[in-house]
Amino acid sequence: MIRMDMHEPTSIRRTVVLLSGGLDSATCLALARQAARECHTLAFDYGQRHKHELLAAAKVAQALGAASHRTMQLDMRTIGGSALTADIDVPKDRSHEAMSADIPVTYVPARNLIFLSIATALAEVLGAREVYLGVNAVDYSGYPDCRPEFVAAFERTAAIATRAGVEHRPLRVVAPLVTMTKADIIRTGAALGVDYSLTHSCYDPVEVGAEVRACGRCDSCQLRREGFKAAGIADPTRYVER
Amino acid sequence: MIRMDMHEPTSIRRTVVLLSGGLDSATCLALARQAARECHTLAFDYGQRHKHELLAAAKVAQALGAASHRTMQLDMRTIGGSALTADIDVPKDRSHEAMSADIPVTYVPARNLIFLSIATALAEVLGAREVYLGVNAVDYSGYPDCRPEFVAAFERTAAIATRAGVEHRPLRVVAPLVTMTKADIIRTGAALGVDYSLTHSCYDPVEVGAEVRACGRCDSCQLRREGFKAAGIADPTRYVER
Repeated sequence: MIRMDMHEPTSIRRTVVLLSGGLDSATCLALARQAARECHTLAFDYGQRHKHELLAAAKVAQALGAASHRTMQLDMRTIGGSALTADIDVPKDRSHEAMSADIPVTYVPARNLIFLSIATALAEVLGAREVYLGVNAVDYSGYPDCRPEFVAAFERTAAIATRAGVEHRPLRVVAPLVTMTKADIIRTGAALGVDYSLTHSCYDPVEVGAEVRACGRCDSCQLRREGFKAAGIADPTRYVER
Repeated sequence: MIRMDMHEPTSIRRTVVLLSGGLDSATCLALARQAARECHTLAFDYGQRHKHELLAAAKVAQALGAASHRTMQLDMRTIGGSALTADIDVPKDRSHEAMSADIPVTYVPARNLIFLSIATALAEVLGAREVYLGVNAVDYSGYPDCRPEFVAAFERTAAIATRAGVEHRPLRVVAPLVTMTKADIIRTGAALGVDYSLTHSCYDPVEVGAEVRACGRCDSCQLRREGFKAAGIADPTRYVER
């Protein structure tokens, strides 16, 4: 865990924020910070091939004034089954139709269920009453655990599963991006001062010399690039082909 | 992952079984095996002080004919907050009243929620339709995530969170011990041939020479010892004071 110099919040209310290092969770952290909360961020080293996002998460946490940042080891390769953790090719240059037609091979089984469960444990230990989660059901590329009904069901289960819930202090799961488009998310974050050049979205990044560049062609890169375009904001991402 | 020689099941139906190495989960595995299922066992190295239970889990999996056994690394010390993972004393010699009065310091925040979430992911990857979980609400020592209502709520959430659920193959969470007493559990397991000398329950074991012995005084040891007595079955556990 990295403890950070805390920007003094106007009201001390503790919040756990799941932070992947991507564009969505960075915006989610900015929204949690805007609500003047003490934000404790949590990232996962789950064996993802795009491990570069963990460096991005730590930078984003610091830049946005998180009170602490943790990276938890959780080796999903023990389980496998996803292009993000196993030796399966990441799909490239897919049309929007192909992206939303079914659940893609980059789906990591039950990932948000697992991450939210661990965030729930951290919230309980810290006495936090909320977990912020940057899921999005608009550009969600067919992941079942990014839908509002998943968030609501999880909240009900967490209330039963924990000491906090039993003691009538149930956890709230806040998913502020869930109905926003990628362009909305980028505009919102930009207005809150998120430096998107610190964030990392690519599923299949390439090292070019000392630099890590985005492939520009996976689903995540495509949605990010189109989002900046639609928002009318310059995309600071360094892509391979530049 | 350890792949094991499979005892040929009478019907190939895949099941994931959470296995801690304790008495309850060993009995749970025996019940899953009795139903002639292909059982894939999953244990967690979560930073528990009683890491000896992981060796017990592997032995139990082999003895009861699991098709595979996995131990997943998941460092709960990143989160802390429990006597089982942090530097907090394990309570000893507590009365039954004290055990059931409140949630004890050995409660690991959201542990079963986390373990079930990961078991759900494994079930999805293996195409398993069930997860067996050895929770028990009778001798449960006040853990909120051992109650039947938790199991039911989790099942509903998992159905929404996963590809399998979306595709109308929702996961069933089976908790066959949930309303049994410790004595019932021991009698059931003994009848199914469980070798309880392989299992480990103690929260605070002591090394005596090359041997690991149970303290005999933590809640888990007390419930185990009383369970064997009530079942009228000899307790094979090696305690410190013997």
